[in-house]
Amino acid sequence: MRVTRLFIDQPFSANRSISFSEAQAHYLKNVLRMRFGDPVHLFNGRDGEWRSVIDRMSRRRCSAVLKGQVYEQKHEPDLWLIFAPVKRARIDFIAAKATELGVSRLVPVFTEFTDVRRVNTQRLRANAVEAAEQCGRLSVPKVNEPENLSSIIENWLGDRALLYCDETGKGTRVGDYLKLAKTESRTAPTAILIGPEGGFSSSELDLLEEKNNFTAIDLGPRTLRADTAAIAALSCWLSVLGDWNDE
Amino acid sequence: MRVTRLFIDQPFSANRSISFSEAQAHYLKNVLRMRFGDPVHLFNGRDGEWRSVIDRMSRRRCSAVLKGQVYEQKHEPDLWLIFAPVKRARIDFIAAKATELGVSRLVPVFTEFTDVRRVNTQRLRANAVEAAEQCGRLSVPKVNEPENLSSIIENWLGDRALLYCDETGKGTRVGDYLKLAKTESRTAPTAILIGPEGGFSSSELDLLEEKNNFTAIDLGPRTLRADTAAIAALSCWLSVLGDWNDE
Repeated sequence: MRVTRLFIDQPFSANRSISFSEAQAHYLKNVLRMRFGDPVHLFNGRDGEWRSVIDRMSRRRCSAVLKGQVYEQKHEPDLWLIFAPVKRARIDFIAAKATELGVSRLVPVFTEFTDVRRVNTQRLRANAVEAAEQCGRLSVPKVNEPENLSSIIENWLGDRALLYCDETGKGTRVGDYLKLAKTESRTAPTAILIGPEGGFSSSELDLLEEKNNFTAIDLGPRTLRADTAAIAALSCWLSVLGDWNDE
Repeated sequence: MRVTRLFIDQPFSANRSISFSEAQAHYLKNVLRMRFGDPVHLFNGRDGEWRSVIDRMSRRRCSAVLKGQVYEQKHEPDLWLIFAPVKRARIDFIAAKATELGVSRLVPVFTEFTDVRRVNTQRLRANAVEAAEQCGRLSVPKVNEPENLSSIIENWLGDRALLYCDETGKGTRVGDYLKLAKTESRTAPTAILIGPEGGFSSSELDLLEEKNNFTAIDLGPRTLRADTAAIAALSCWLSVLGDWNDE
């Protein structure tokens, strides 16, 4: 049986006792039916993964004592996903899948044709934490507050490449881009931008086209839903330029 | 506004009248609120995409008359997805996403560690049809009846390559496999096999390893859910060896 892993944003050191949040305590106690002395693995995004043992399980509080490090900290590639928010189930899904695949930051973006005008970043983060716990990551992606596309473009730091998925058919084939970038050792930092299901407006496409380090990429002849496009583009990038390809 | 596309398994020719199924009639009439004279695009997987116009919209029947072909038939790559069934929402999701991405056949497979023991292939097919209608495909993937992995392996026709996603870390990196296969012009026919979330059993791995044209591939250091692994592997394949890369 797979060991239970929990993310907890607290400093780690040997024999330190870690108090769980109410939600975590409920999960350990009532869902997993854990008892005093049971093992849980913990990670905080900085100190690797630690073995701990439950040392308190009362009606109101639950804690565990840190025993020792089992894995050293590893970092995910410096890869952001910038995405136009979609309806609830699909946005949960994007956060979870992007986390599994290995992004370091999730950036919700409002564009001209984005229907959804509010983003629950708390919820996005909770989905990212859950996915990180399940997929064996030792970090949780950062979640930005939503921003308008124009302000993201305006404040862009030039050293990060941006690939935007262009449905007009004029983009570079993703395979061709990655092959060339690999030859030229252009790996991270990178961001992948997925627009809303209505696509980018023509003035947005003009703005994107002007920027130096931005490239329009093409994901084939069929129209992908926004969530599919996100997973597809991330997977292709990770398989060629990301840590799926490390020695 | 995007034109409505419907899949209908009937022969097409100019001025032929096409009767819609009850579900399609309901959708056209009550969801889209279409009326006599409204345009609908139809495809049957053989004759391309046709423009048609609704010529009957009564309480019990709805039909449209075929006006002319707007796109010639195109075929998707000869790429199968063989996957261990998972619970309802995720299996719907796999069928839809694999269709969008461009697979030609969906093959549910039972393995030793597969928990789900029944597959509603009607429902899988309905999800595939809906995704094909929405993503602009001119074909719908075939859906096989579920089979045991051992019998699939036993009856395998040698000319089709099979890539199985191996979580043990011993597989070839997917990027490396694709690069080599591209160099050697090994494109289709191919199948991608995704096991259940518990992985393959060691005797299944032995069977898979023995076969000539089978390759274990690796999808990076994090543990992907089965549905994520399916989309990731299909995307990588399509971007290098599939029609995302056509002239």
